[in-house]
Amino acid sequence: MVLDHVSGRWAVLVLTALGDGPHRFHELRARVEGVSEKMLSQTLRTLVRDGFVRRTVKPSRPPQVSYALTGLGEGVTRSLQPLFDWVRDHAGDILAAQAAHDQAAAE
Amino acid sequence: MVLDHVSGRWAVLVLTALGDGPHRFHELRARVEGVSEKMLSQTLRTLVRDGFVRRTVKPSRPPQVSYALTGLGEGVTRSLQPLFDWVRDHAGDILAAQAAHDQAAAE
Repeated sequence: MVLDHVSGRWAVLVLTALGDGPHRFHELRARVEGVSEKMLSQTLRTLVRDGFVRRTVKPSRPPQVSYALTGLGEGVTRSLQPLFDWVRDHAGDILAAQAAHDQAAAE
Repeated sequence: MVLDHVSGRWAVLVLTALGDGPHRFHELRARVEGVSEKMLSQTLRTLVRDGFVRRTVKPSRPPQVSYALTGLGEGVTRSLQPLFDWVRDHAGDILAAQAAHDQAAAE
């Protein structure tokens, strides 16, 4: 199901990290906090297969690999922006709800 | 991380299924195609804890349990709508990209 690929945690963060232009693997790893090398390459492979990300190899020594959003990737990243903004603005409300819930469960 | 909870596959679909009003467990199961009983109750528990969904027990015989969006849940569901619409409108493009990618890999 298509929604899986774009709505996974790492996919959202990788797409957002590519929002300002192409990046190399190690740059993405630094930008996407907490992602492991394995999860990042797996996520990139899925995003490339879905047509959201383009992988470019520059034939230098050593070859330089970089990742960029395709047109389709730019579209989906734009459609994710409201969710991203909403979560940023309401993270406090959610943490408060969780704390209240856990306290009620403990009483 | 907050984004995990709202961006998981089932969470998105359950929130959307509650968009038109409260539903009972078995109604949600019928609306969210492919979800198992276990995944649905796990997803609902997380959504309740995050403050997105309210669980109400009507003290009848047998007790009737229903689930509804809270104010916070309505907000996040609205913020998910552009992603949902985009995926619906571009599912064909993504499937075509996947097919082209798999064919190139096989050649």
